[in-house]
Amino acid sequence: VTFAAALEQIGYRGAERCGEHPLSAFFELHIEQGPILEAEGKDIGVVTGVQAMRWYEATLTGQDAHTGATPMHLRKNALLGAARVIEAVDWIGRKYAPGVATVGLIENRPNSRNVVPGEVFLTVDLRHPDDGVLHDMQEEFYDRLKVIGDDLALGAEGKTIWEQPAVRFDPDCVTAVRRAAEISGFSARDIVSGAGHDAAYISRVAPSAMVFVPCRGGISHNEAEFSSQQQCAKGAQVLLQAVLDYDRQLAERGGKDAYRGGS
Amino acid sequence: VTFAAALEQIGYRGAERCGEHPLSAFFELHIEQGPILEAEGKDIGVVTGVQAMRWYEATLTGQDAHTGATPMHLRKNALLGAARVIEAVDWIGRKYAPGVATVGLIENRPNSRNVVPGEVFLTVDLRHPDDGVLHDMQEEFYDRLKVIGDDLALGAEGKTIWEQPAVRFDPDCVTAVRRAAEISGFSARDIVSGAGHDAAYISRVAPSAMVFVPCRGGISHNEAEFSSQQQCAKGAQVLLQAVLDYDRQLAERGGKDAYRGGS
Repeated sequence: VTFAAALEQIGYRGAERCGEHPLSAFFELHIEQGPILEAEGKDIGVVTGVQAMRWYEATLTGQDAHTGATPMHLRKNALLGAARVIEAVDWIGRKYAPGVATVGLIENRPNSRNVVPGEVFLTVDLRHPDDGVLHDMQEEFYDRLKVIGDDLALGAEGKTIWEQPAVRFDPDCVTAVRRAAEISGFSARDIVSGAGHDAAYISRVAPSAMVFVPCRGGISHNEAEFSSQQQCAKGAQVLLQAVLDYDRQLAERGGKDAYRGGS
Repeated sequence: VTFAAALEQIGYRGAERCGEHPLSAFFELHIEQGPILEAEGKDIGVVTGVQAMRWYEATLTGQDAHTGATPMHLRKNALLGAARVIEAVDWIGRKYAPGVATVGLIENRPNSRNVVPGEVFLTVDLRHPDDGVLHDMQEEFYDRLKVIGDDLALGAEGKTIWEQPAVRFDPDCVTAVRRAAEISGFSARDIVSGAGHDAAYISRVAPSAMVFVPCRGGISHNEAEFSSQQQCAKGAQVLLQAVLDYDRQLAERGGKDAYRGGS
């Protein structure tokens, strides 16, 4: 069953072809999903873009061995290698701040109390607002992975499984958001989104920008996610103000046609 | 269903009471389950005892956070803490050689590519032939766990879940094994067993010792476990020779009664 056929069946397909809908601009309001605005006591984040992201997978291969019977100097401990990769990835994040670098997932094999681990699979997430710097972070990751494997006599294979270039939001849209916060009397700072958003994709076909509001502890995708009614209201106020402002400018610039998205 | 009742039902309970069976001595032949004999080209390991063992569990607690939206300096990364514990445990093993120290099992939560890990559970296995040194290793482990937690603003809880003191095998039995290897013309070295064995428990009620033969790559509990027919035959030869020798000595010492095991 294709997506189109399923939409057809429930009467939701509609007549308009994908990409044909006219868009003058796109403004998106979102919680920050990070702790920066809260930490700095700011009401509004003026989102200037979305950082570039790349995902990697790595496998370290050693030799399963009995924890009691295998002297330290004769081990090929894949989990020790993984520990060094985790430390190295964290170090890369700190070195290239405001970039971030994380090992989020790890699978240890055979994962038994009395077996020196013979194989570890892990994932790495690297992000930076600048594509060039992200490339440097990637080089450093692959270099460190090789050195760690060599030092411990482990196999160490890594590969890039996904990448998304940095997004820079439309300067006029961003200016509209910044001015909206100012007019409304809210404290604001420019911010680069660490997470992906609808606006990052829509920015490929129409001028876009985003408004962030603080969220408690930077927690998201979690039942503990929370922004107060007041925080949300300020975000909505800035969103409305920015749309009105941008629309007014558009009219002043002589009623430039709404952008028609395409491939 | 008790064990006794189940044995009764299948006619395997027997008349003899547990602990009543007379044992003069106990000799056990086993593959080394480690790589030492193979690495040194020795035919026989004269096992002088079993090292002391202790098992621990530790939990590191931080805060789940979005990998893209959480700056490095605002993270509480439990997996980074775990990485440092893995490194520290390995370092303890090397420092206290011939002791060994291993993190064998790790559970990372939520274990997702784009979430900074908020909680990690792991197990630690420490062993040393000397109970006192094992105690020092344990102190060092708990000290390091605390420091690592404090450095990264993580909760760090550890506990000892199992311990077994060092076993020293009976000197006469060990001498019988050493002499048996010598008489048979096989190369041998004294060795402390890293793994637990039947003989470690039987040594509580009767004089015991063990004979080790090499195994390929030190691999055990694995389909790749392998000792050659020749290696096994040498082990069997030493086992027989040691039993005959010990029996002869017993007779010479005036037919000392066989030990009757007790509680």
